[in-house]
Amino acid sequence: MANKISFGSDNYAGVCPEVMNYFQQINCGHVSGYGEDVFTEKAIDLFKMEFGSNIEVFFVYNGTGANTLSLEAMTQSYNSIICSDVSHIIVHEVTAPQKWTGCKFISLPHLKGKINFEQIKTVYEEGIFWGHHTALPKVVSITQSTEYGTLYSLTEIKNIADYCHQNNMLLHMDGARISNACVALDCSFKEMTKDCGVDVLSFGATKNGLMFGDAIVFFNTELAYHFDYRQKQGLQLHSKMRFISGQFIPYLEQKIWKKNAIQANKMCQLLAIQLEKALPNCLVYSSETNQIFAKIPSIIVEELHKDFHFYLFNAKEEVVRFVTSFDTKESDIVMFGNKLITLCK
Amino acid sequence: MANKISFGSDNYAGVCPEVMNYFQQINCGHVSGYGEDVFTEKAIDLFKMEFGSNIEVFFVYNGTGANTLSLEAMTQSYNSIICSDVSHIIVHEVTAPQKWTGCKFISLPHLKGKINFEQIKTVYEEGIFWGHHTALPKVVSITQSTEYGTLYSLTEIKNIADYCHQNNMLLHMDGARISNACVALDCSFKEMTKDCGVDVLSFGATKNGLMFGDAIVFFNTELAYHFDYRQKQGLQLHSKMRFISGQFIPYLEQKIWKKNAIQANKMCQLLAIQLEKALPNCLVYSSETNQIFAKIPSIIVEELHKDFHFYLFNAKEEVVRFVTSFDTKESDIVMFGNKLITLCK
Amino acid sequence: MANKISFGSDNYAGVCPEVMNYFQQINCGHVSGYGEDVFTEKAIDLFKMEFGSNIEVFFVYNGTGANTLSLEAMTQSYNSIICSDVSHIIVHEVTAPQKWTGCKFISLPHLKGKINFEQIKTVYEEGIFWGHHTALPKVVSITQSTEYGTLYSLTEIKNIADYCHQNNMLLHMDGARISNACVALDCSFKEMTKDCGVDVLSFGATKNGLMFGDAIVFFNTELAYHFDYRQKQGLQLHSKMRFISGQFIPYLEQKIWKKNAIQANKMCQLLAIQLEKALPNCLVYSSETNQIFAKIPSIIVEELHKDFHFYLFNAKEEVVRFVTSFDTKESDIVMFGNKLITLCK
Amino acid sequence: MANKISFGSDNYAGVCPEVMNYFQQINCGHVSGYGEDVFTEKAIDLFKMEFGSNIEVFFVYNGTGANTLSLEAMTQSYNSIICSDVSHIIVHEVTAPQKWTGCKFISLPHLKGKINFEQIKTVYEEGIFWGHHTALPKVVSITQSTEYGTLYSLTEIKNIADYCHQNNMLLHMDGARISNACVALDCSFKEMTKDCGVDVLSFGATKNGLMFGDAIVFFNTELAYHFDYRQKQGLQLHSKMRFISGQFIPYLEQKIWKKNAIQANKMCQLLAIQLEKALPNCLVYSSETNQIFAKIPSIIVEELHKDFHFYLFNAKEEVVRFVTSFDTKESDIVMFGNKLITLCK
Repeated sequence: MANKISFGSDNYAGVCPEVMNYFQQINCGHVSGYGEDVFTEKAIDLFKMEFGSNIEVFFVYNGTGANTLSLEAMTQSYNSIICSDVSHIIVHEVTAPQKWTGCKFISLPHLKGKINFEQIKTVYEEGIFWGHHTALPKVVSITQSTEYGTLYSLTEIKNIADYCHQNNMLLHMDGARISNACVALDCSFKEMTKDCGVDVLSFGATKNGLMFGDAIVFFNTELAYHFDYRQKQGLQLHSKMRFISGQFIPYLEQKIWKKNAIQANKMCQLLAIQLEKALPNCLVYSSETNQIFAKIPSIIVEELHKDFHFYLFNAKEEVVRFVTSFDTKESDIVMFGNKLITLCK
Repeated sequence: MANKISFGSDNYAGVCPEVMNYFQQINCGHVSGYGEDVFTEKAIDLFKMEFGSNIEVFFVYNGTGANTLSLEAMTQSYNSIICSDVSHIIVHEVTAPQKWTGCKFISLPHLKGKINFEQIKTVYEEGIFWGHHTALPKVVSITQSTEYGTLYSLTEIKNIADYCHQNNMLLHMDGARISNACVALDCSFKEMTKDCGVDVLSFGATKNGLMFGDAIVFFNTELAYHFDYRQKQGLQLHSKMRFISGQFIPYLEQKIWKKNAIQANKMCQLLAIQLEKALPNCLVYSSETNQIFAKIPSIIVEELHKDFHFYLFNAKEEVVRFVTSFDTKESDIVMFGNKLITLCK
Repeated sequence: MANKISFGSDNYAGVCPEVMNYFQQINCGHVSGYGEDVFTEKAIDLFKMEFGSNIEVFFVYNGTGANTLSLEAMTQSYNSIICSDVSHIIVHEVTAPQKWTGCKFISLPHLKGKINFEQIKTVYEEGIFWGHHTALPKVVSITQSTEYGTLYSLTEIKNIADYCHQNNMLLHMDGARISNACVALDCSFKEMTKDCGVDVLSFGATKNGLMFGDAIVFFNTELAYHFDYRQKQGLQLHSKMRFISGQFIPYLEQKIWKKNAIQANKMCQLLAIQLEKALPNCLVYSSETNQIFAKIPSIIVEELHKDFHFYLFNAKEEVVRFVTSFDTKESDIVMFGNKLITLCK
Repeated sequence: MANKISFGSDNYAGVCPEVMNYFQQINCGHVSGYGEDVFTEKAIDLFKMEFGSNIEVFFVYNGTGANTLSLEAMTQSYNSIICSDVSHIIVHEVTAPQKWTGCKFISLPHLKGKINFEQIKTVYEEGIFWGHHTALPKVVSITQSTEYGTLYSLTEIKNIADYCHQNNMLLHMDGARISNACVALDCSFKEMTKDCGVDVLSFGATKNGLMFGDAIVFFNTELAYHFDYRQKQGLQLHSKMRFISGQFIPYLEQKIWKKNAIQANKMCQLLAIQLEKALPNCLVYSSETNQIFAKIPSIIVEELHKDFHFYLFNAKEEVVRFVTSFDTKESDIVMFGNKLITLCK
């Protein structure tokens, strides 16, 4: 993909400059490993400033690790986990959560990337109908923003959380793109998670400018019992921990998360405008975050691919995906738009 | 441990300057994720220059990940894995390899941190005696340099490998400190692994100056079949892969591994001299690498701890552990030696 | 359910007299355990007479055990297994196969209890589209007769098997009610399994008159490699094995499987006639085996339940399930029919 | 082993006549499956008469199933389980408990088949020394009578239980031969288990005259939470449950367990006398139960094997194992003794 402008993925971007620079401060001689250091301590404090003090935070290597270990902490192997049929945890993690938890995953047909509590109610009731002959529903997992770039409203999240808690279930949020969601909804992290009733959050940041590392945030702190053991066993405890946790210091303190997400979302909106202009009604879902899906004839896709990198998402339906990131430039969008307009004439 | 000189662990050290600087080159805009990039390509080429071309290399997050996924690729769940009773895989990974593989781990009483093929022979024969009523021995795992800083000679490794292969078993090497071992034995990576008959190697580098990331090297390439699936499922596939793999470029190309390990080992030898001078016969094992164990009265340990950080390893026997790293300075050793001499007077 | 005639389940029936009597012969003093005995040897020979000599047979405790261990032998944990959304392996085994294999289960919407190769093709192609970022499809599992009492034709099975083998996949058959299927299709066990291309068969018999015990039959004998280890590890190796395997001697030699299945199927057909007579078009699926599903108003169900035992299958749609067994008597059906007619007047 | 008298194993014996006859009563038409039947209800009542009412009882297929599911209910995967190095759970179950629980198994060198609380204390303290970098000790598992036929005294059991409970651990007892132990110690089931502080018991009966089936008895009933789900998922829920549970009715009500164990133990004592007479000091451990180990020259073993079946246990040390069962006859012992005396002359 050399020399091409990329809308391939937000994890094709590198590390944002503020975080990159901060590594110089982190790399300051010897400090204790495995999280017993001042950088980790400060990062946890910053999380508590965002979410309130009664939380537990753990830093892991990646989103699949965050999701898998979160779900393990929330379940027994005889449980089932309810999610959408396009959720990352069942489609794109090679069954890591299944293997690690032993649980059944019940996938619901997504509605613009989302599921709702009525769907959950139906499968929950089916689940308990058979008693101990089938897996006992225990967790609902939603992705915010979704795999299709769409958003749950705060009310939608709250409704799902309420249904979960009324039925002895728990709510997990895969927040791989949580910053993009918060920016789009113009709310705080806390308002979109803890205040809605989320029990455990996979707090993603790698797609928004970090080098590596995500966080797991437990609002239901009982679920964090002995999580330090789970983390080490789950291949997710970094020896030189400060190099994960330390990245969150500028990220949260200097609100880099917001700056980066604003840029990515904004570029995506511009891209949407260009697409609509050239190919009216080509957008599959309206998106306010940094992912957009569009139906584009394959002959045009072929031409675009000569200068731009992006993925065919569904070959049959000619749907392609565009992802913008913190370092997508307005000039990238302009160039793309110009070429597209030319091709569509 | 603020302001103290640390001999606590080689992963308490930060990132060595050559690798730290190289991150600037890695962080060069958008590149494909998950390993399909030029940095990963080049890193693999450099591994092939070290080990020969008929290998498979994968980059993972940490040593526990490398060990766990290596062992999974070498076994079925009805197998057993033979190792020493002080091996990291059974003592310090919270049973990650057990949970992930399902295998039985047979621990042999270590002899200066090592096991030998006669011990292996005994448990292998016991293992097959019961047929399908007990786990079938399949893998021997050795650590080089060992958890006690000692070294297997090339002949010892070869003898174990030969016994394994004669009995339909495989040899895994946990090379968390492989560079320190190579420097101490004055041999190449290849001579100590592939040429001796090792089947799969966990190639550690984080303890020797990297920020994060280890490699798995398959010499028995059949075992790497579908390993890309295992890696993703095993929570060990980094999206921004170049930031792991890229670190190996200066590490191997500029022989940073050697420079760093030479310094760590040399400092450890100096430390040993100081210890022997102050407390004759205090050293528990003679070490040529970067770890040293010594019997020191707890009253002296208490005083030393005021200025130096290191761990009590065995409280009952008053054994403490010292680990040096690429950035341990000769002046650190001198200060330590002076204080120790004073205390022992 | 005392004193009620039961159409609750074929495993609510006891042991058929021929098998019950044969236990006296099995119980003949000391014989070697774990399958090294003459009863097991003879039972295996009888299986080979049914299926041909190039098979491997193992006797396990129950159907869930047979399915779970079969699927384990056919997969690696990074694989996916394709089945219908009503298949026993995903609905009624509390995720035993998921936990034991680690695999992803892809459930297809059933068509009269069945799936077809076009559906399989769609999800297979989706599965391989993402490469090592999603689970690799490896096994299709079908149930014959299905959970809804319906039947795959031999051609349908062959088509699925062919598609599997053309795409490096394997075909598993859950034959919990295989005898009922063979009787209904008027074919031999071999014609419906091995000759169609089935790779591994869970051969059920408990629902058709045995006390306990199912068999696993490997047609693809490479998959049986080290299966004796898997069986013991899988909690499915009976010490007093002859008491499982020995039951299969009269079952196969005296064709008790056929006699029992004929009776069960025949009674089910009579029941269907009675249902159709009283409530025209109430049958949900046409069935030629021993299970039948009917839409019956709940007020009538309530009355029937006073004298007969059977299960509400889908409360919303007022669908109930009737299962007949080897010991269902014609007079049971007549009594049921009479009461139903009266109620429906 | 045709026509040979067998001391091979107590599971080479068949079913005792009282249980065999009782199957006729169990096989009485249709009853609900999966344990919702009068036989299971009565069997549970009988267990409560033995152990007191505040227990939970589940009936499973075999001892490996009982041990594996008991241990799963007592642990999280980051725990360790402490047992002797000859315990069945780590030697003879192909790592079923490891695979199912994910736990680390810490094996202590046995002392006449047993472990004591001082040994447990040592490894417990080592275990917690490393915090969340190693598995957290949670369960001690002892076998009564032991794999070597020896016995824990009630005081020894109590001491271990007390140490466990003082340190937030639990005590599991593998009672594969619990009846032989009770008879030898002349105590009740309850005195040897619940009263000593055992938390969960694998109550074995197959080796003492049953056809199949063991029980799991929870004294710590909190551990039984959702165990019905675990049982089904664990491949251990029999559909025709009454045929397991029903066997326990005569077994407990008519005290068949006692009658059978008395005979087996008594025959073993007679055998011991014969062995001592012919080969003074040949007995490896003194045994009061139904297993005995003796050092016998291989040349004599070879001759004995012509008429008697028994196993070489340790080839190097020429140790053989004899097991008697409920149906071992005094004449068997006499014949054996006569032949042995002749050979030893």
